[in-house]
Amino acid sequence: MKYKVSIVGATGYTGIELIRLLKAHPYASLHLLTSESYSGRKVSEVLPFFNIDKVLEKFNVKKTGEESDVIFLCLPHTTSTVAVEKLLKYGKKLIDLSADFRLKDPKQYEKYYGVKHKAPKLLKGSTYGLPELYREQIKGKGFISNPGCYPTSVILAAAPVLAAGFVKTDGLVINSISGISGVGRKMKTEYHYSESHADVRAYRLVNHQHTPEMEQELTRIAGKKVTVSFSPHLGPYNRGILTTIVFDLKKKLTTEAAVELYRKSYSGQSFMKICPAGVLPAVKNVFGSNMCEVGMKVDARLNKLIVVSAIDNLMKGASGQAVQNMNLMLSLPEDTGLAGTGMMP
Amino acid sequence: MKYKVSIVGATGYTGIELIRLLKAHPYASLHLLTSESYSGRKVSEVLPFFNIDKVLEKFNVKKTGEESDVIFLCLPHTTSTVAVEKLLKYGKKLIDLSADFRLKDPKQYEKYYGVKHKAPKLLKGSTYGLPELYREQIKGKGFISNPGCYPTSVILAAAPVLAAGFVKTDGLVINSISGISGVGRKMKTEYHYSESHADVRAYRLVNHQHTPEMEQELTRIAGKKVTVSFSPHLGPYNRGILTTIVFDLKKKLTTEAAVELYRKSYSGQSFMKICPAGVLPAVKNVFGSNMCEVGMKVDARLNKLIVVSAIDNLMKGASGQAVQNMNLMLSLPEDTGLAGTGMMP
Amino acid sequence: MKYKVSIVGATGYTGIELIRLLKAHPYASLHLLTSESYSGRKVSEVLPFFNIDKVLEKFNVKKTGEESDVIFLCLPHTTSTVAVEKLLKYGKKLIDLSADFRLKDPKQYEKYYGVKHKAPKLLKGSTYGLPELYREQIKGKGFISNPGCYPTSVILAAAPVLAAGFVKTDGLVINSISGISGVGRKMKTEYHYSESHADVRAYRLVNHQHTPEMEQELTRIAGKKVTVSFSPHLGPYNRGILTTIVFDLKKKLTTEAAVELYRKSYSGQSFMKICPAGVLPAVKNVFGSNMCEVGMKVDARLNKLIVVSAIDNLMKGASGQAVQNMNLMLSLPEDTGLAGTGMMP
Amino acid sequence: MKYKVSIVGATGYTGIELIRLLKAHPYASLHLLTSESYSGRKVSEVLPFFNIDKVLEKFNVKKTGEESDVIFLCLPHTTSTVAVEKLLKYGKKLIDLSADFRLKDPKQYEKYYGVKHKAPKLLKGSTYGLPELYREQIKGKGFISNPGCYPTSVILAAAPVLAAGFVKTDGLVINSISGISGVGRKMKTEYHYSESHADVRAYRLVNHQHTPEMEQELTRIAGKKVTVSFSPHLGPYNRGILTTIVFDLKKKLTTEAAVELYRKSYSGQSFMKICPAGVLPAVKNVFGSNMCEVGMKVDARLNKLIVVSAIDNLMKGASGQAVQNMNLMLSLPEDTGLAGTGMMP
Repeated sequence: MKYKVSIVGATGYTGIELIRLLKAHPYASLHLLTSESYSGRKVSEVLPFFNIDKVLEKFNVKKTGEESDVIFLCLPHTTSTVAVEKLLKYGKKLIDLSADFRLKDPKQYEKYYGVKHKAPKLLKGSTYGLPELYREQIKGKGFISNPGCYPTSVILAAAPVLAAGFVKTDGLVINSISGISGVGRKMKTEYHYSESHADVRAYRLVNHQHTPEMEQELTRIAGKKVTVSFSPHLGPYNRGILTTIVFDLKKKLTTEAAVELYRKSYSGQSFMKICPAGVLPAVKNVFGSNMCEVGMKVDARLNKLIVVSAIDNLMKGASGQAVQNMNLMLSLPEDTGLAGTGMMP
Repeated sequence: MKYKVSIVGATGYTGIELIRLLKAHPYASLHLLTSESYSGRKVSEVLPFFNIDKVLEKFNVKKTGEESDVIFLCLPHTTSTVAVEKLLKYGKKLIDLSADFRLKDPKQYEKYYGVKHKAPKLLKGSTYGLPELYREQIKGKGFISNPGCYPTSVILAAAPVLAAGFVKTDGLVINSISGISGVGRKMKTEYHYSESHADVRAYRLVNHQHTPEMEQELTRIAGKKVTVSFSPHLGPYNRGILTTIVFDLKKKLTTEAAVELYRKSYSGQSFMKICPAGVLPAVKNVFGSNMCEVGMKVDARLNKLIVVSAIDNLMKGASGQAVQNMNLMLSLPEDTGLAGTGMMP
Repeated sequence: MKYKVSIVGATGYTGIELIRLLKAHPYASLHLLTSESYSGRKVSEVLPFFNIDKVLEKFNVKKTGEESDVIFLCLPHTTSTVAVEKLLKYGKKLIDLSADFRLKDPKQYEKYYGVKHKAPKLLKGSTYGLPELYREQIKGKGFISNPGCYPTSVILAAAPVLAAGFVKTDGLVINSISGISGVGRKMKTEYHYSESHADVRAYRLVNHQHTPEMEQELTRIAGKKVTVSFSPHLGPYNRGILTTIVFDLKKKLTTEAAVELYRKSYSGQSFMKICPAGVLPAVKNVFGSNMCEVGMKVDARLNKLIVVSAIDNLMKGASGQAVQNMNLMLSLPEDTGLAGTGMMP
Repeated sequence: MKYKVSIVGATGYTGIELIRLLKAHPYASLHLLTSESYSGRKVSEVLPFFNIDKVLEKFNVKKTGEESDVIFLCLPHTTSTVAVEKLLKYGKKLIDLSADFRLKDPKQYEKYYGVKHKAPKLLKGSTYGLPELYREQIKGKGFISNPGCYPTSVILAAAPVLAAGFVKTDGLVINSISGISGVGRKMKTEYHYSESHADVRAYRLVNHQHTPEMEQELTRIAGKKVTVSFSPHLGPYNRGILTTIVFDLKKKLTTEAAVELYRKSYSGQSFMKICPAGVLPAVKNVFGSNMCEVGMKVDARLNKLIVVSAIDNLMKGASGQAVQNMNLMLSLPEDTGLAGTGMMP
């Protein structure tokens, strides 16, 4: 038996990645693929790396709600709220990849996204879809808010040591660098190959919209207020986020003990890999896969712990995680359709 | 039931790609993975993108021959001949990815590879593993010589029009450009990222070792002597070959008619995609997949036909095709474990 | 004494490269820098790699004509014709980087550029600015049409052997690959970093607009009709064109003799480098410089000569050559401001 | 009059960059170019982007000391100490690009470089060659220790705010990312294009050898002990370092006031560019140039100041700065031969 799966907004990068994954998923059958820009054209014509004859359609709430078993929403924020509101009543499995239902506090949403939330009453109804932490809450649920790419890389890197209470929680210094697919498919001069190809830059320092998402979730894990100083960067490559967090240790810890803590915390998780002491993560190790690689080192002199994580921003940072959530919602084995290793070289 | 599959020379790029594919193959179980440089170490340690605890071993002919159902050889030439000679007597499925058994004429081998062939009597026993042309000969066979990357891209682009007798056959002008993974994993200053990153160069003009392989196979297809002027290039990217062939037409032809000829020739082939008139292939369309994309345009003014093909050199150009051959040898559906689409972006 | 030099269309890639070169030119003083999109803003704000406080202005014919000693036009075709027509009467040194005055036959212009030429009477008044061949005609001239990037790489690679009459002249097979800066700065999804970064593709096969320019100039050199089958490609890098031409030899020739012919032909030229036999050109060798590197190899078996050239498309293929022309027009040493070596790594 | 300038170790990346710069320097004449690996071969043969017929020689202390006016040492550490010791007695201008004379404390050297310093008595005789801070000490000096690439990017980004006493000085959190040319030209599998091309990784966390250099110099600037938690990363590009420092503010400050502080501190400096509030540095803005671009943003909520700097690691981070030092040592205008703008695209 295959579930009818629809993707709303199928021609952006997260939509494309979902097509790739769901096409190979043994229990999914691609049903409606919507695109406002390319409707009426065949997938194989618009996205020639896909051998799919299906025709892209404009998004139709009723048709999508009635005909689909699972719906992935890959829409810009605000737009997504409206779609969610209408689709919820059909009672299908709904996974929203936008930021619209990640923040529980509509004031934070307004502050960081610059618009009033259009359906604040629905905020409590969604579950934050980070399976490594909230697996049991996700199972069987109907509506999941898929985490942001940077928050995924940060939360997985920070959770064990925050939960253990070993580190200070105010003003965590977090640096991330993302490949350019992270900014999406819309064109700007600065993303022209000729301008991006040898560039690294910091952007949206201090007030990146993923900051409150990180703080909300890290606070939940630590059991006390966590604040983060988050500095995102863009690098001249395609996929992947590397995150480096510098923690102030409240007690002495060795690198080996820290590794052991992370190993135990993530024991049994399919998509977590903890590097042994002396080894650090690399983006190429997770290219195209749903893995999160985490490594660390203690600075005994300054009493700090540096934790580094690597994910593929389109996989564990977006569409791969969305499929992982779908599997849990449908009570399928969590790694169904996600066991493939990334490519190297 | 799973076949025990061993890879001899598992830590080069074709070996790594075979691990990736076979790990996800429903009827394959990775058995022996050999490496002379890294023996004794875990796969996951040497190749950290693989979650595989198996230990790499030195190549042992007897063990490999006795314990494996299928053996992939990813060895340098000459070395491969010796291994094949010894392994053949075990009667297992043997797929040689080296160039040692592609040329039927040992004199050509000596001329282009610079050494005398060590087992010329075995040359007739191998089958050239290009399924799109020789599927029936491959089925059930025990020993396959896997085609070269450039020849695969050239032969698939040239076969229909040569078989139809529409073009001249002497001195075909062929230009190819390959990503840098095509040169293998051994280190040279010129492959240092800092030297390769923005470079394009021609290399081995006139006497590239794949020239006689192309001529042997194209002659077989055309039914008359074909000679090629082959100019290979290296480009600043990782994977993929783009080949451009300029044919002199013996009769008038439109682009549409040429496309139709190719469509018919490759009708029913899982891994061939013929672009409609007006569209040309792109390496990104086949990145990470086993597809070969072919497109073309007629130059009515000069009475020429230009055919372009794109493959991933590590997939259809090496390990993907090797798995395709394994599937045929084992009477499995040809696209088993190969249906995945490549990644974009 | 410094010449007042203006650049019309200063914020595209050829304009930017001209600013870089002229800023360091000992006899040039940047005067007017025009931009329709960014007028009113400082150069250093729009192009932050330049430490130039001058304000970008909208193009004003009268002001430009009256105030400048030298004018570089970096405008789209058609637009450029109109500007040239008006500017000519001011009698200043005028260098047009567009294609509008390269073709002497307005019918060819109409065929390949899709619009009727707006000032066909002026076509005879421009001089084709390829100094290595037409140095004496350029000296002291007032109006130069700067060659196309592909034609520059092709003509310099082909001239000696065509002039010597050693090769056939019908249907020369030419393959070129260009970095993405060659398509200009305007935005299209396909030039998004995420789409271009690992792609190679052929484009505009058969009817690329540089074809008639090549044929016009090669015919002039050969003294008989030359036709070319030109196949351009785009590669995943920033700057540089590598061109590979396959000639049919009319007589026997060794690689050494061919190299000697090229050495003699280009003897004394500052910007030509002929590789010794056994060495081939590489784009990285000319990155950022005004050099053209040429290498070759004879295929004695098939009686062909393969010639390869490398240029930086924004330097010798556009702005560097334009400055070289300016130097000649002003009777300055030809390499003034152009002697710098490109960068490696 | 031209100074005879020699480069010891001319075929590594800093040596190559020095050749590029000095070739175009109006008061320098390249004299001896030494290379242990390539001695006896012409520069143009080994480094084909240089049109230089001079022959590379093995390093000969006596010849170098006697015949040169200026000597640049591009040698590995330890080796450099020995060369310096012998060359000093010739009384020529000596610029050491190695790390051997940067640390004043031989114990720190031994701790971070793993070997005992061979000439600790000479440590006081060298001047740390960061002209923006120590211009007057450098002028006329005979022996300069050229700063490391990361320290240059860090010190220039941190100096004004540390000198002003506005920030805490213990455990500064510094993240840097460098292009791959930073690791030098020697080959390792991990720097193979196929392995590096899409990778980002952290490396040498906690104990990178540039840590004590940063602390030594920042302490000097702050007038009190500064400690740094430095996390270096490698990114998939060629040149350039982006450094992000997160300071804890001791008093309230606006972004505008911080920018003003930096503007004043660096007023009149040729190679410093301070971005206006709202703009952040980018590696592409300094590609190939000797500029250091600095930008910043205050986090009023967490009371932090984030400062970002961009340099070209081979220019301001090594060879460009070395030439800047040479100019000062010879009482030439500081930007002689360095005024060129980097390339974009």
